[in-house]
Amino acid sequence: MSEKIAVIGAGSWGTALAGVLADNNHDVRLWTRREEQATEINQNRTNHKYLPGFELPAAIQASADLEYCTSDADYILLVVPTKAVREMVQQIRTFVHKNTVLIHASKGIEPGTSKRISEMMEEELLETKAKATVVLSGPSHAEEVCERQPTTVTVSSHIMEAAEDVQELFMNNQFRVYTNQDLIGVEIGGALKNIIALGIGMTDGLGYGDNAKAALMTRGLAEIARLGVKFGANPLTFTGLSGLGDLIVTCISQHSRNWRAGYKLGSGNDLQTVLEEMGMVVEGVRTTKAVYELANDLDVEMPITTALYDVLFENKKPEVAVQQLMGRVRKHEVENMSLLLGTDFQ
Amino acid sequence: MSEKIAVIGAGSWGTALAGVLADNNHDVRLWTRREEQATEINQNRTNHKYLPGFELPAAIQASADLEYCTSDADYILLVVPTKAVREMVQQIRTFVHKNTVLIHASKGIEPGTSKRISEMMEEELLETKAKATVVLSGPSHAEEVCERQPTTVTVSSHIMEAAEDVQELFMNNQFRVYTNQDLIGVEIGGALKNIIALGIGMTDGLGYGDNAKAALMTRGLAEIARLGVKFGANPLTFTGLSGLGDLIVTCISQHSRNWRAGYKLGSGNDLQTVLEEMGMVVEGVRTTKAVYELANDLDVEMPITTALYDVLFENKKPEVAVQQLMGRVRKHEVENMSLLLGTDFQ
Repeated sequence: MSEKIAVIGAGSWGTALAGVLADNNHDVRLWTRREEQATEINQNRTNHKYLPGFELPAAIQASADLEYCTSDADYILLVVPTKAVREMVQQIRTFVHKNTVLIHASKGIEPGTSKRISEMMEEELLETKAKATVVLSGPSHAEEVCERQPTTVTVSSHIMEAAEDVQELFMNNQFRVYTNQDLIGVEIGGALKNIIALGIGMTDGLGYGDNAKAALMTRGLAEIARLGVKFGANPLTFTGLSGLGDLIVTCISQHSRNWRAGYKLGSGNDLQTVLEEMGMVVEGVRTTKAVYELANDLDVEMPITTALYDVLFENKKPEVAVQQLMGRVRKHEVENMSLLLGTDFQ
Repeated sequence: MSEKIAVIGAGSWGTALAGVLADNNHDVRLWTRREEQATEINQNRTNHKYLPGFELPAAIQASADLEYCTSDADYILLVVPTKAVREMVQQIRTFVHKNTVLIHASKGIEPGTSKRISEMMEEELLETKAKATVVLSGPSHAEEVCERQPTTVTVSSHIMEAAEDVQELFMNNQFRVYTNQDLIGVEIGGALKNIIALGIGMTDGLGYGDNAKAALMTRGLAEIARLGVKFGANPLTFTGLSGLGDLIVTCISQHSRNWRAGYKLGSGNDLQTVLEEMGMVVEGVRTTKAVYELANDLDVEMPITTALYDVLFENKKPEVAVQQLMGRVRKHEVENMSLLLGTDFQ
């Protein structure tokens, strides 16, 4: 069945997801803040800034008119940087009605409040009631989705019926969608893996090998899970697509902007230079700040996040931070695991 | 304290581990079947077949005389292919006494019997009583260990005091050793990751992207854990260094011979050609056969192992096997997770 879907945000991931929906014959309106980008997408079928070299499906209708895109949409998919989420929901909430399903595919935690994306969205909806808020997350480089390479993602919501509708909306032969009931775990895994990717990029930039990289990714996943469990997430979610899967793809692939930013830091550049050179939002930087504060408040041990925070915001040298990480004194692996489940599991 | 240690097997991993022990000032005797390799190691400080380009520590004494190497050793470390384990234990058992600690760093499951390495070793010791059998496993390419790149591994034993002694033996600034009480989980994780590495190599050889690779690694870990839990392993062990860590390093790095064998298969070569070209033992091939039979006997769902078995032993085309894997119909990620713990976890 063809549905009306507004996609808010024409970065690489928003555009790629609009393409999947267009492939599935839905009525897709892609909103972008910039009029000239809408014209480029409609006339040339390209998005040269974010997806250079790809031809977009002809059925995507781009527009800078938010009302045109959202007013009669059955689904509104938000794909904007974490810091733009609240403002976007304020702008669209007059067009949300009781049958609208809101979806988001953003990955972050709000500094200061420590809110997840779906929490920010629900707060900003105020009295407006949407049918549901659904998150879509998983190991998925936008470029590979545009190439129709096989990709798997997870959708989750407090209202599973809505998650299953969203699964139906996106599912096709190349784009496989799984449901998971653990909204908290899915959102936390997606947000926090960007911190680990920054760290892995940094060790790569410093010239460390694959043995060190594998060790840090393993400990990174444990660290994410420890915080997630404090929030009520199911620890097993972190071993799934939106946890481990997304961590792997973000850490091993040079498509990842968080990995790239870390790599540049490890190669001797300072944060300001790196962010200016990238010219795109690097979610992991703000997420590191948010999670560092949170870990302190909740007394959760997060050594990789702490090391990154020290490099990003306290001018610690990357080589010193990584050396300290690798040389930590814990001797029993089971201690890590007990912490993971918050029990004395032996 | 300097200990007398016999290292049995001068392949890349045995030689690298002998190097760590020599760095730690132990008395290290490295046994090799070939007299000329012993001479090469002693005279040139090289092992050009298995570790080309590296200079070995001068303190390693290589020899083809098994009695010289083992007769007064406090520790005997076995690093031989899985299929050579029984024969080697038969040869050394007269030199084993009640204070000897046997260590192994091999990764496999015996086809036919489905035994783990430590089980095979204990069977072949017959009436001989060693103090303990200890496994050493984790994300550790031999080449990076020779470069003194930071590396982390896990040791495990039914007798934790012996595991802690082995930890002490190997631990130094670059080579970090953790203990884990779950011997079964550590051995199964190390053996089964080679199957997944073959599969990942195959998808790389076929030209699949990182999204597909991350999905298969995630599902591969779940599949390993499902079998491990049937054997009594702690599922959390699979999220640690000897599970996830080793899986990552084996799948992302071109040092890995299992990945390389899979890559050649995916690029269109048949198994016989691949094995001849490699000229080294590819443990994953025999492990796939052993685990496929076991999964059938125990009724454990292992789709990646089954797909690999079909390619390796039933002439299924790699592209058909991988397509079937990616297109599987399971829709709820939680089903995978419930299977992981063998419960109806929601």
